[in-house]
Amino acid sequence: MENFVFCNPTTLHFGKNSLDGLNNELQHYGKKVLLVYGKGSIKKTGIYDKVMDCLKELYAEVFEYEGIRPNPVFEDVDAAAALGRKHKVDVILAVGGGSVIDSAKFISITIPVHHPAWDFITRKAKPEKAVPLICILTLAATGTEMNPFAVISNPAAKFKDGYGSPLMYPAHSFLDPQLTVTVPRNYTAYGIADLIAHCFEGWFGAGEATLSDRFIISIVQEAIKYGPSLLKDLGNYELREKIMYAATMALNGLTMQGKKSGDWGVHGIGHILSLLYDIPHGASLTIVYPAWMKYIERKYPDRIGLLGSGIFNESLTAHESIWQIEDLFRSLECPVRLSETGIVGVNKLKILETLMLNKVSGANYKLKEEDLRKIVELFL
Amino acid sequence: MENFVFCNPTTLHFGKNSLDGLNNELQHYGKKVLLVYGKGSIKKTGIYDKVMDCLKELYAEVFEYEGIRPNPVFEDVDAAAALGRKHKVDVILAVGGGSVIDSAKFISITIPVHHPAWDFITRKAKPEKAVPLICILTLAATGTEMNPFAVISNPAAKFKDGYGSPLMYPAHSFLDPQLTVTVPRNYTAYGIADLIAHCFEGWFGAGEATLSDRFIISIVQEAIKYGPSLLKDLGNYELREKIMYAATMALNGLTMQGKKSGDWGVHGIGHILSLLYDIPHGASLTIVYPAWMKYIERKYPDRIGLLGSGIFNESLTAHESIWQIEDLFRSLECPVRLSETGIVGVNKLKILETLMLNKVSGANYKLKEEDLRKIVELFL
Repeated sequence: MENFVFCNPTTLHFGKNSLDGLNNELQHYGKKVLLVYGKGSIKKTGIYDKVMDCLKELYAEVFEYEGIRPNPVFEDVDAAAALGRKHKVDVILAVGGGSVIDSAKFISITIPVHHPAWDFITRKAKPEKAVPLICILTLAATGTEMNPFAVISNPAAKFKDGYGSPLMYPAHSFLDPQLTVTVPRNYTAYGIADLIAHCFEGWFGAGEATLSDRFIISIVQEAIKYGPSLLKDLGNYELREKIMYAATMALNGLTMQGKKSGDWGVHGIGHILSLLYDIPHGASLTIVYPAWMKYIERKYPDRIGLLGSGIFNESLTAHESIWQIEDLFRSLECPVRLSETGIVGVNKLKILETLMLNKVSGANYKLKEEDLRKIVELFL
Repeated sequence: MENFVFCNPTTLHFGKNSLDGLNNELQHYGKKVLLVYGKGSIKKTGIYDKVMDCLKELYAEVFEYEGIRPNPVFEDVDAAAALGRKHKVDVILAVGGGSVIDSAKFISITIPVHHPAWDFITRKAKPEKAVPLICILTLAATGTEMNPFAVISNPAAKFKDGYGSPLMYPAHSFLDPQLTVTVPRNYTAYGIADLIAHCFEGWFGAGEATLSDRFIISIVQEAIKYGPSLLKDLGNYELREKIMYAATMALNGLTMQGKKSGDWGVHGIGHILSLLYDIPHGASLTIVYPAWMKYIERKYPDRIGLLGSGIFNESLTAHESIWQIEDLFRSLECPVRLSETGIVGVNKLKILETLMLNKVSGANYKLKEEDLRKIVELFL
């Protein structure tokens, strides 16, 4: 095991009607609230009204930033931060999925400064304080609700990558599986794929940590057991609950303790596919993972065989494991080749160029241009 | 799953020489340190000198309370709290195993008040603040280093039980597996048994939480895989590391999320055996668990069979599971009957009376006098 220092300061409020506890927490932060959300789906589902009722009860002064895009971009972050800065907000309330919460994390460190959020990514600036962030999660997928990381795009610079700071942990996250019951079939599936992929990134990370590996297997087994059932019964609260909790545990630190890091090579490649072709994050991962595994299998069969044997609870070779994992993604109705997305005008060269421009590699399994070229060939 | 609100605020500093980071944290709390430890084994092993060197570097004013007993008692807590109160200490530094840290937790809430710690247990008083607590763990067993619970005895009142408050989370816990390498064979074994028993208490708790159950199985499997090997190779750092990390994860909240509570009936009975016959905590649990399982097997075979099948990774009946668990405890060289401890003058009636006086039961599997009588018969 590697040495580690760990504390996860996010308070998780989990379960049916957990939003009832929102005001108990919100009241400690002040009256000026920056409310951040996406393109209005929370208005259709009634979550917006519920949240506004809570805020009215508190006599809160609410400043709304609506319209965070999926695969979120810096422009929104800077605009929302300007709004929050102008009104000296006390707290950010983010209502949505990974895109909204990731943006809100960047907003929280950008409000106190007078430069664009982009300067954090380029390492021109380092965050020194943050406006407290409270999250209401409406999509089980990224685990952002209980970690200090965020992924952001800058399409002009052809850039998409993750960033993290201990200041970016949400103070509180409210997880009511009822709020995810309206998530459509495809995004439900992408969320399940995403949580599985997070476990895989931990599994393929550097450093040996046997108990963390067991936790990884546990979370993936939970997703395998209940994920496909949920796709057949989208309104099932108990299944939504299981997937929502699994997604949080898949990326809150538990799977990485005692490891140097996760690998994150597949995420790096997936981000580029999302950047270039606006592919949903979870779908980009189910496209890249089988190809990446097929490529690294030659050099590192043991680790893949152990993963497959663990999650499917039978003795499998690396080769068999990859095929079963591909089948698992298929059973989740996710694409396992880029061609399955139906995107026209795919340009191999452009993908490779953008991968190189973004310096995409893995922390454990390093990828050079030639490796990336072969992986791209395998997932087309 | 049950609704839950969860945040574990303890910062874990894990790994070889993690104590190098002690002063970085300690300096934030102030110069007056109450140092709490046991009967001097830390002086023999050199840990005391190492800690004193750190404190000297900080120019700390150190007030020492030496001599916390195993199966810790209120008298020590009150005496140490008086010392801390008199000198207005800024922080408590506890160096030891479960007994020392549990006592330090009570000391931390007793310093700010002017009544005995016992008043918290009798619910005459409720803790409202606490002196910050930093722990250096020297024995992998109880998990107290990352939770808000403590167990304490009052022999005069024939009482031993747990108590908890969110104020009792340590601020920091330093876990260096090297510090546990000198733990003798029997206490190493009791520690492993204790962590397994904590997992079992979660398993037999009320409420259905499938992922928490998987985490329980994972932790027990880790203990089964590496525990008996450690007993054959006490100086092995890697094995010490695995057991130390597993013990922390066995009782830091992870195994209970989404459950109403653990059961804790076996712990309740074990505490009484420790109180009456000064049996080490872990040994009391390996004596009681097989008996308790044999007794509840009649009514609830499924849950026991699932546990055995999970931890041993083969299909087992409840009956087979119990025998294998008993064998597991034997492989850890722990007693599975009270008679195996060699204690003379065991008094069944006194055990039962003290169980009733302490209102011992389980949160999930409730135990009445007749149940307790039969369980006692089974473990004699």
